[in-house]
Amino acid sequence: MGNMGRVPVGIVGASGYGGVQLVRLLKEHPGVEIVYLGGESSAGKPFSDLYPHLSPFVDLKIEAIDLEEIAARCQVVFLSLPNGLAYQMAPTLLARGCKVLDLSADYRFFDVNTYTSWYGGDRQDQEIVSKTVYGLPELYRDRIAQAQLIGCPGCYPTASLLALAPLLKQGLILPETAIIDAKSGTSGGGRQAKVNMLLAEADSSLGAYGVARHRHTPEIEQICSDLAGSEVTVQFTPHLIPMVRGILATVYATMRDPGLQHKDLITIYNAFYRNAPWVKVLSSGTYPQTKWACGTNLCYIGLEVDSRTGRVIVLSAIDNLMKGQAGQAVQCLNLMMGWEETLGLPQLSFYP
Amino acid sequence: MGNMGRVPVGIVGASGYGGVQLVRLLKEHPGVEIVYLGGESSAGKPFSDLYPHLSPFVDLKIEAIDLEEIAARCQVVFLSLPNGLAYQMAPTLLARGCKVLDLSADYRFFDVNTYTSWYGGDRQDQEIVSKTVYGLPELYRDRIAQAQLIGCPGCYPTASLLALAPLLKQGLILPETAIIDAKSGTSGGGRQAKVNMLLAEADSSLGAYGVARHRHTPEIEQICSDLAGSEVTVQFTPHLIPMVRGILATVYATMRDPGLQHKDLITIYNAFYRNAPWVKVLSSGTYPQTKWACGTNLCYIGLEVDSRTGRVIVLSAIDNLMKGQAGQAVQCLNLMMGWEETLGLPQLSFYP
Amino acid sequence: MGNMGRVPVGIVGASGYGGVQLVRLLKEHPGVEIVYLGGESSAGKPFSDLYPHLSPFVDLKIEAIDLEEIAARCQVVFLSLPNGLAYQMAPTLLARGCKVLDLSADYRFFDVNTYTSWYGGDRQDQEIVSKTVYGLPELYRDRIAQAQLIGCPGCYPTASLLALAPLLKQGLILPETAIIDAKSGTSGGGRQAKVNMLLAEADSSLGAYGVARHRHTPEIEQICSDLAGSEVTVQFTPHLIPMVRGILATVYATMRDPGLQHKDLITIYNAFYRNAPWVKVLSSGTYPQTKWACGTNLCYIGLEVDSRTGRVIVLSAIDNLMKGQAGQAVQCLNLMMGWEETLGLPQLSFYP
Amino acid sequence: MGNMGRVPVGIVGASGYGGVQLVRLLKEHPGVEIVYLGGESSAGKPFSDLYPHLSPFVDLKIEAIDLEEIAARCQVVFLSLPNGLAYQMAPTLLARGCKVLDLSADYRFFDVNTYTSWYGGDRQDQEIVSKTVYGLPELYRDRIAQAQLIGCPGCYPTASLLALAPLLKQGLILPETAIIDAKSGTSGGGRQAKVNMLLAEADSSLGAYGVARHRHTPEIEQICSDLAGSEVTVQFTPHLIPMVRGILATVYATMRDPGLQHKDLITIYNAFYRNAPWVKVLSSGTYPQTKWACGTNLCYIGLEVDSRTGRVIVLSAIDNLMKGQAGQAVQCLNLMMGWEETLGLPQLSFYP
Repeated sequence: MGNMGRVPVGIVGASGYGGVQLVRLLKEHPGVEIVYLGGESSAGKPFSDLYPHLSPFVDLKIEAIDLEEIAARCQVVFLSLPNGLAYQMAPTLLARGCKVLDLSADYRFFDVNTYTSWYGGDRQDQEIVSKTVYGLPELYRDRIAQAQLIGCPGCYPTASLLALAPLLKQGLILPETAIIDAKSGTSGGGRQAKVNMLLAEADSSLGAYGVARHRHTPEIEQICSDLAGSEVTVQFTPHLIPMVRGILATVYATMRDPGLQHKDLITIYNAFYRNAPWVKVLSSGTYPQTKWACGTNLCYIGLEVDSRTGRVIVLSAIDNLMKGQAGQAVQCLNLMMGWEETLGLPQLSFYP
Repeated sequence: MGNMGRVPVGIVGASGYGGVQLVRLLKEHPGVEIVYLGGESSAGKPFSDLYPHLSPFVDLKIEAIDLEEIAARCQVVFLSLPNGLAYQMAPTLLARGCKVLDLSADYRFFDVNTYTSWYGGDRQDQEIVSKTVYGLPELYRDRIAQAQLIGCPGCYPTASLLALAPLLKQGLILPETAIIDAKSGTSGGGRQAKVNMLLAEADSSLGAYGVARHRHTPEIEQICSDLAGSEVTVQFTPHLIPMVRGILATVYATMRDPGLQHKDLITIYNAFYRNAPWVKVLSSGTYPQTKWACGTNLCYIGLEVDSRTGRVIVLSAIDNLMKGQAGQAVQCLNLMMGWEETLGLPQLSFYP
Repeated sequence: MGNMGRVPVGIVGASGYGGVQLVRLLKEHPGVEIVYLGGESSAGKPFSDLYPHLSPFVDLKIEAIDLEEIAARCQVVFLSLPNGLAYQMAPTLLARGCKVLDLSADYRFFDVNTYTSWYGGDRQDQEIVSKTVYGLPELYRDRIAQAQLIGCPGCYPTASLLALAPLLKQGLILPETAIIDAKSGTSGGGRQAKVNMLLAEADSSLGAYGVARHRHTPEIEQICSDLAGSEVTVQFTPHLIPMVRGILATVYATMRDPGLQHKDLITIYNAFYRNAPWVKVLSSGTYPQTKWACGTNLCYIGLEVDSRTGRVIVLSAIDNLMKGQAGQAVQCLNLMMGWEETLGLPQLSFYP
Repeated sequence: MGNMGRVPVGIVGASGYGGVQLVRLLKEHPGVEIVYLGGESSAGKPFSDLYPHLSPFVDLKIEAIDLEEIAARCQVVFLSLPNGLAYQMAPTLLARGCKVLDLSADYRFFDVNTYTSWYGGDRQDQEIVSKTVYGLPELYRDRIAQAQLIGCPGCYPTASLLALAPLLKQGLILPETAIIDAKSGTSGGGRQAKVNMLLAEADSSLGAYGVARHRHTPEIEQICSDLAGSEVTVQFTPHLIPMVRGILATVYATMRDPGLQHKDLITIYNAFYRNAPWVKVLSSGTYPQTKWACGTNLCYIGLEVDSRTGRVIVLSAIDNLMKGQAGQAVQCLNLMMGWEETLGLPQLSFYP
């Protein structure tokens, strides 16, 4: 009876990196109990076959995906699946009364057509999409608290938007000048065997990919537009870095008022994130290391003003699998359940 | 009043990796409150100058080392200093009634002469040394619980001894055949600027050091002898691995009974570590990855019997800065205070 | 006509890491011209589709594997394929007069039954196998020079045998005490997409695999037995290191004469490798870093004698893709063609 | 007499990474013989004490720095010293008739005041500075061929300028929109023991530094202005990447003609670098990996046009210690001596 009163939760797609992060976080979360792990290819296997280090701690099997069964057992369901599957499952779960948090791209867009034009597929579920909330608590805290379905943000959009939000919200920059040069560890590619993600290929090297056409671009632009109150186009370039975890977004934009001072900017950011326990604005001259956020749900933000060029440079660092994925989903869960936003989420990174 | 009842603790030598691990662990430990951080070179600086990512969470200054002052404020003191300093400080702290946990080599030896022959110096404190307990809880749990002064084990000895202990205790191997081939991340070298520890030198490379003469050898031999009940000499070779954290010890020894079966060995290890919450014996055919222990106080052990050669091969993996250093010190603290051995220590590693 | 007089060579299996190393080396080799690249899955593609950085320098297509065609065009053929394919191709090439160097395990064993008991399959080609030469030039230089078919050694056996050869040949150790603890970068796993070889999995971690049953064991034992003149059994444990290239073998053995001195050992090794341009014995107290051999065909050897334990410890470092694979094949080619053993092979590593 | 006819060269500052690269390259260069290695702190030591892997190949001592002696023995002198020393040595060497290539910042600026305002010091040597040539052969080939003194470019400026040159020279972009987001391996920091460059600190992490004030900014701007024919200000942000070697510069700029096509851009770049053997423009859709350039003197350039934003994105990859340092110096030497620009410089990278 030790778990009496704990909310029963399930994870569909438990075998990937999103899944294992969720298992790890929810296992130590005081408000929930994991009662279901689901997957297709691994159905029937003990979870610890996939992650042997958790075998002394997690004694659960991966079960086949049966939506009725899931709905019967779980009050909250996390969907951590490849793009294009969640929107086929969520309606049933919602109809049965479950709260649903989707970690894929399926529910990140206000308009279902934006989704289909970048991700393909044929969707007729604008009605559900319209009731979905974009799960970035620092921007949509109140709406998340009321939502039944959350579309959890992508990893790059999380780092990018937390860097840009105060600037756009307060009209401090010319939006069309915004450039996001983002760098990510390779775990962002998921636990799928791809040649370019092999250590032998990706270690000791660095490169860009998806230049001018990465699918996180419309997601970033959608929220930037919402913040700015007008259509925003951004330049977004992702790079793969020879490390496992972490994203650094280096964001450039031209200031509307070239006289804006560095210390004013820090004040503005601190005010904007005053009630955001997971965003930490660094003092002048300090720039974030991705390692600082590693294993935590934190976003560290460093700021610089270049009076020579009239630009602001914002640096934001997150753990792509935590604040950029599973941690943020748990943060949303906390809000949806009326719990403390920090409940059950690690704050202090180990160093080094 | 939130900290009422918490034990006031201090850390002398807070600026290094041992120090920052202790700060991180003790900050989240429900039984203690950090009331003092001390250091020589960094005295007067805010701790967060050294570790900016902790600035939102740790608001303490590094103070000069004043033993009377420390003793007045702290019930427990961790000494995390270069070798040769602790034995000059501990006596005063002990005399004032403090419990002391030393992370250096100063109090690891039963005989002060063993220390001086490998580490140098001139010591006349055999009396104190004799009352010190070697802080490896899996072997000396009861004595640690009664001790006022703990000599916390080295990182390599921890991994090596947990691998060897059941074999030696039960007389299953010929002790003189024991070979420990150990591999460590570079954080074991501490936060000191050395050319050979630069990323540019140490990354993408691998090498041995201190072959046949590393100072952890006598420490391992002392405890092996204590376990075997007779003088034991071991072969110990450390290697530097291009990664930050983690130790893997690969231990070889010839079995006394060449008919010993793999499954019996697993049974023996499981029995030996039955009451050890921080040691996990893996099932047959599974060998530990150092990453599994990363950020936790766990030691994972894998076992193999080679019937062709008559040898047992034991693989043990720890996080060198946790079970190999600060985590183990906190585990000892828990025992000394009569708390649960697992209190305040992370169990579940993140993966990947 | 710039290539007049160059020997026409072909590479079957050009798409993997063995293939691309061969292309790189042979492209700069003054004695040969690459006239054929072959592969199954990539047939029809330009080689530079697989390795775009070589597109300005290598203008060759990967062709389907047609043995008659290959034999018609090539004087020398390198087979760089998964195990079990070469022995189906080599006979045709040999019958047409080609010299053949096989980089797989197919021709590494003196006895075809040793092969089949470790690698499976049903082979009836002992006659060809008996005429094959094991391509470790430091041990079989003269026979390689006369051979038509070479079975190029595995990467681990190369590092292990160069470390052990002088000891076994001169009867300096008790052979049954030999333990090889080997550490390799992940490129040894080849260019195949496997989850455990992903950077996200393998970086920042370390583990053993194939303990007591790796298929390089019988290969090492075969040559050790040949050197010792009697059946030798060794302990061999491979580990995966978070880096791309390099193998370090740490070899332990008990000395027959416990009075053997370190300086005598260095003299013995220097004498043994006097005519071996690719083996460098380090001076006393210096142990090799794998990085030193990176990108070269060198093997660096460090030596230590432990008078406390009566053991010798030998450390050998190679680049697993060079001396451990493609470089050694080219070294064999040089001998087969009567060229300088060093021709066209890089000697000086870059550092760092 | 094997080296008869070879040009005698010396390296002042042989102990650092620039020095060891030069030793490695010049040792295999058919046109020169290294006759002198100089250094302050290592004077008297064999070079192989610092780099043991080269001991079988380089039998030279590091000598004290005696300019008259150097001038007497060397026809060409490479200065590879910390900033601020070369301009105190070069005049003597030049007066004695030596050709001098300086790898520090001392001779990179057309105007000595630009140097002193960013690097400090008090210099009165505008006369010599005015005769110095900036050693970027792709832009100043003819002048380098005639020069006696070369100021070799910084690593970041090399990658940045090769990316930007065709755009600026042909007026294709609005210069003030140029943003250079650069990423470098840590070897760029040199062989000096600094805490932030330790593997334990820098591995598995990523961060920016010197934002809006890095000293390579004025160097980049000087050459950009020379190319554009008017004063250019750029945004330059360097980042430290957890790897040893390699720089990737991601360059953004707004196109003057938003209708410029991707394929036209590739044509323009190919034309611009038609006679540049060390610059390789990649085909459409291919972006460079830094690893491709590793160990070579190559610069790989990838191009993208974003019609949504009206920007061009250029990606350039070099080995920071080769094309970004020692390799480029040797390329300049080749031009100064009337040799082939590619003489003695590696072209084909190993992969992986």
